[in-house]
Amino acid sequence: MKLGLESFQFTEDDSIRFENGALYILDQNALPSDLRFLELRTPSEVANAIKRLSVRGAMAIGIAAAFGVLLGAISSHGDTESIIKAVREAVDLIASTRPTARNLFWALEQMQELLDGAWGVDEKTLMEELEERAMRIASVTVETNKKIVEVGQEIIKDGIGIITHCNSGALAALRFGTALSILIEAHKRGKKIHVYVDETRPLLQGARLSSWELERAGVPYTLLTDGMAGMVMREGKINLAITGADRICLNGDAANKVGTYSLAVLARAHGIPFYIAAPLSTVDFSCRCGDEIKIERRDPVEVRSISGLRIAPENAPVYNPAFDITPAEYISGIVTEEGIARPPFEKSLHSLHGS
Amino acid sequence: MKLGLESFQFTEDDSIRFENGALYILDQNALPSDLRFLELRTPSEVANAIKRLSVRGAMAIGIAAAFGVLLGAISSHGDTESIIKAVREAVDLIASTRPTARNLFWALEQMQELLDGAWGVDEKTLMEELEERAMRIASVTVETNKKIVEVGQEIIKDGIGIITHCNSGALAALRFGTALSILIEAHKRGKKIHVYVDETRPLLQGARLSSWELERAGVPYTLLTDGMAGMVMREGKINLAITGADRICLNGDAANKVGTYSLAVLARAHGIPFYIAAPLSTVDFSCRCGDEIKIERRDPVEVRSISGLRIAPENAPVYNPAFDITPAEYISGIVTEEGIARPPFEKSLHSLHGS
Repeated sequence: MKLGLESFQFTEDDSIRFENGALYILDQNALPSDLRFLELRTPSEVANAIKRLSVRGAMAIGIAAAFGVLLGAISSHGDTESIIKAVREAVDLIASTRPTARNLFWALEQMQELLDGAWGVDEKTLMEELEERAMRIASVTVETNKKIVEVGQEIIKDGIGIITHCNSGALAALRFGTALSILIEAHKRGKKIHVYVDETRPLLQGARLSSWELERAGVPYTLLTDGMAGMVMREGKINLAITGADRICLNGDAANKVGTYSLAVLARAHGIPFYIAAPLSTVDFSCRCGDEIKIERRDPVEVRSISGLRIAPENAPVYNPAFDITPAEYISGIVTEEGIARPPFEKSLHSLHGS
Repeated sequence: MKLGLESFQFTEDDSIRFENGALYILDQNALPSDLRFLELRTPSEVANAIKRLSVRGAMAIGIAAAFGVLLGAISSHGDTESIIKAVREAVDLIASTRPTARNLFWALEQMQELLDGAWGVDEKTLMEELEERAMRIASVTVETNKKIVEVGQEIIKDGIGIITHCNSGALAALRFGTALSILIEAHKRGKKIHVYVDETRPLLQGARLSSWELERAGVPYTLLTDGMAGMVMREGKINLAITGADRICLNGDAANKVGTYSLAVLARAHGIPFYIAAPLSTVDFSCRCGDEIKIERRDPVEVRSISGLRIAPENAPVYNPAFDITPAEYISGIVTEEGIARPPFEKSLHSLHGS
């Protein structure tokens, strides 16, 4: 895979950028009302931004994690030994933020890998390697998703209605996302499509983020509450359902934002194909099936309130898994940078991975 | 049907009551934070309260509508002719508030019926008849739902998990509701049940109202966002789904709060029986199937914001139907005051109606 690494630089339009020793991330909690960047200078600031979902989306988290580790190395101000220690601490800290997204661990593994031969290396070289590796993770993300967007065009026919859940656009990665970016690109290429966006409670990534991306790109869309999906499908408005994924198992079972499974079941009941779009780095080849995926449980207050406004009894018992598992049998295909994996996924994912 | 009308009186605990020439309704928009009553003195105040959903739930709307008509008659301060005119105007005004709930029109028809022989009646007698009729509508609602709660016990087995959508408790009617009240009564009778409540976006009747009712009654429950229903079903926690209905057609197709259809499809996919509980007055025998039901569309701002707080781009295009249609084929049974109607519903509903 040619990556054009030499030429990769962050630009002002990027929702994540590393500049003058600090990581700047577009605060996704402030969207769509405010467009403001957070300046992060330590691994713990990065860890908090990930936990609070100021940066979210499997691949965006991966990039932030990589630079979070780099920030740890930078703030060590020291020799090779103290850099190694700082990197290890940063990796542990950031790995503890959110358990489900595969790309977070993929990025941390990439950073940690550099420590293997690090004892024999001077501090300047090690720092350069770490920075280069973090930049490479950002660059690979951009190039990979560019390919996913290209591969995905195949399933977007002119004139169709498409439903999506959560946010899998540029905000969830860098410059290009997965599922949502496929739709935006289809529109740019002149296909007449209409996108139906689940608002995606509890944290409203559909209402706040996907709507915002679609509006900026001029794509015709309609915002729905999550419960409306069935009705809109029954009305014949939907020809395709597509989402991103946070972790995909060997057999094709996929973890994605809670509500994705309901959407997949509804799609199946209405004869609508359901696709996932994600880079091969999202595939956890050590995970045989969805039952093995650890699902993050989040603060009940996210369900009991919306942006600080209480909408339920004060101590209402709440279920708040961040993700659910869509079994492979509901998935028509997985759009990756190397092509579309079709069932049986164990075979097709392995084959694409090897290509 | 014996109704014990003589003894019917409003009490302090009622969420709707008529007292000293005014209608007092517990403002459902203020729950669960504030428990406050609105004092309504004219048909247009009642119409506004219905439109704004300060009073909501098919049967509660019916009662409010009946007393709204009575308030029109009272404020006419006149002879038989002006009372008749005021009643007609009030009926027209209140009928225009919300198109879907059958019980609204059922209650208005009951009030209007009195005008048939009214020209030969003195104003005092006509006023007495109107008040008696409105009280009768309140009383019938209480007695009917009491029976529904009794009939419904049959399907609530000890130890089960039940999912419900929107609010079909006492707040949606008077003293006793339908689906939710069946569950509360089952708990009171010592059955160990756990209720899963869809929050029910956009207006959060599940989070705000059903949670509040369950909590006051001490019923173990868990609040869910609407998208979580599929996941919770897949985890095996749900044995039964049950909701109310706003209008039921001859063939059993039922209109209820948007999101009910998605829930019914999810229930079917997981082999979970899906029931509706509603009085026979909800059945529109002139409506052959769901396609004939007029679905109310509400203000887009309800989806774009939550309690005044904006959660999407300012002018985000929005779909906001208040209800959806669940086709009869998804409905295992309809719990009515005369027994449980089973498919085929055209036959069973007619038979219960005649009994």
